[in-house]
Amino acid sequence: MTVNRQIRLKSRPVGAPTAANFDVVEATMPAAGDGGVLRRTIYLSLDPYMRGRMNDAKSYAPPVAVGDVMCGHTISQVVESRHPAFRPGDFVAGYDGWQQYAVSDGRELRKLDPQAAPISTGIGVLGMPGMTAYVGLIDIAKPKAGETVVVSAASGAVGSAVGQLARVRGCRAVGIAGSADKCRYVTDELGFDACVDYKSGDLVASLRGACPSGIDIYFENVGGTVFGAVLRHLNRGARIPLCGLVSEYNATTVERGASLLPLLVARATLQGFIVSDHTDRFGAALQEMAPLVRDGRLKYREDITEGLDAAPDAFIGLLAGRNFGKALVRISPDPTR
Amino acid sequence: MTVNRQIRLKSRPVGAPTAANFDVVEATMPAAGDGGVLRRTIYLSLDPYMRGRMNDAKSYAPPVAVGDVMCGHTISQVVESRHPAFRPGDFVAGYDGWQQYAVSDGRELRKLDPQAAPISTGIGVLGMPGMTAYVGLIDIAKPKAGETVVVSAASGAVGSAVGQLARVRGCRAVGIAGSADKCRYVTDELGFDACVDYKSGDLVASLRGACPSGIDIYFENVGGTVFGAVLRHLNRGARIPLCGLVSEYNATTVERGASLLPLLVARATLQGFIVSDHTDRFGAALQEMAPLVRDGRLKYREDITEGLDAAPDAFIGLLAGRNFGKALVRISPDPTR
Repeated sequence: MTVNRQIRLKSRPVGAPTAANFDVVEATMPAAGDGGVLRRTIYLSLDPYMRGRMNDAKSYAPPVAVGDVMCGHTISQVVESRHPAFRPGDFVAGYDGWQQYAVSDGRELRKLDPQAAPISTGIGVLGMPGMTAYVGLIDIAKPKAGETVVVSAASGAVGSAVGQLARVRGCRAVGIAGSADKCRYVTDELGFDACVDYKSGDLVASLRGACPSGIDIYFENVGGTVFGAVLRHLNRGARIPLCGLVSEYNATTVERGASLLPLLVARATLQGFIVSDHTDRFGAALQEMAPLVRDGRLKYREDITEGLDAAPDAFIGLLAGRNFGKALVRISPDPTR
Repeated sequence: MTVNRQIRLKSRPVGAPTAANFDVVEATMPAAGDGGVLRRTIYLSLDPYMRGRMNDAKSYAPPVAVGDVMCGHTISQVVESRHPAFRPGDFVAGYDGWQQYAVSDGRELRKLDPQAAPISTGIGVLGMPGMTAYVGLIDIAKPKAGETVVVSAASGAVGSAVGQLARVRGCRAVGIAGSADKCRYVTDELGFDACVDYKSGDLVASLRGACPSGIDIYFENVGGTVFGAVLRHLNRGARIPLCGLVSEYNATTVERGASLLPLLVARATLQGFIVSDHTDRFGAALQEMAPLVRDGRLKYREDITEGLDAAPDAFIGLLAGRNFGKALVRISPDPTR
């Protein structure tokens, strides 16, 4: 193999991205070089934050430049290494983006033990999405047993971990998801106490039914009308870790927003956070979460798309809520499965 | 005098209140009774929160019932007392509402020393509005020297104290107010570093000019489009004490709201608070603020309307931003002036 297939940002989307915003390019295979680690991508993680990187706007991370390879967390296998810590065949989690091969000095790589957990969890429940759930729920919202925790995008990578961690902490976990199938999965498979389909019926009334004691914590992944409905049920002293606003990422105009008056009345705290600010907490998070994954108390579901070329469509679907579980692209075969 | 003139809530307003929502009633003069304290109202404080009490909606305090005297903080003089702590002639701060006389067991009254500060400050800069400024800025936002503090309704009772306290803490104080006159007062009289007229020109651009290092703290009194403009300039780790949303209190429909995405990008914290939860801090606040008032480092301006019957119009004007300074109604002569 002498070619490194890549997907690059061709143009910045206005509104929802389309296939035309992406370019499939056959680049030259990179070489390991001095001290370098060459690896083959197995899984690419698709995450809503990537939509923000496609804009040329000030954000918490610089945008992807037009013509650059799209960014993204990856699970890879080392092909060639001139770095003492990595050997060919090692599995690593990294940030190689939408391409078949990548090389670097290895500083950012995290070695994975395929015996401890499936390697794909390194970009899922035991990777960035899982860390996001932990930091937002445990460190920012500080749940107490008996409280009601609501999470949107509940069948997704972050949301499913939030609700299950809330249950472990003795809380009532209530999901919000976008179909009856997803809601069934959230309650029957993940063990949430309730789940509400935001696309069906009156969300304010459904939430009232699902949260008879009100809402103490709302883990916000979506924004928009869901946010407004949740505000109607806040208990005094409610905490709202603000993790994502996927319903707004493609918006070209601002929709009618919710009044913040309920935050005042409830003396609520809403706090934006970015998981990469909290790397000092990842050790503690993994120590608690890895055993829960092994025990089956922290379940996850993967929505795997096959082949790099299908990544743009899968990403467009993710932003529209068409994925069901953690969105992954399998770029090359996973030798551990 | 055998009559106690009162203004009662006649009907609940839909949108902005009108004179028709209020009733002027001549009630019987109350008697001191056993252990009671009868006093004559001198000043009534008009505050935006009263609009919320006119609604029949769940809030942090029960609504005023239709037919009841409108609520409000007051400065009064004791007429008759059967309580050992109060003597005729004493000045007290209380919560007697929109009426000429009131009686109670005195539990809620705070005696004022007219030598220490003008008695009207007991419902102004050294009363609820001043305490609100202190708790929101000092306790919730925790300003550090060199930070930029923006406050809306900057010429009002709360806003003017916020900016001056911010200056005392070594911060850059930037006001937002509703006219060129108010802005001149905020900078020239109160000593804010800058003030922006939200009714004139492009607020986003004006704020950029007034806050060259961005915004670290935004003390929120108004909501609506002002909030959205401020969000464009938040620095990382910004704090937003949410004190009031006066632009929304009369709203019958929710206007286009701001996206919360800037709160996420800036890792900002927005926290609703109600000053009455923080009475334990009033001692510390008064200890710091009373000397500042005496020294002239904490200035205030009063917008006094004469006579109880004019209170509804003055209140309607307050909600529309027509007051200039702390809105008071003089219900009977102030013997200390």
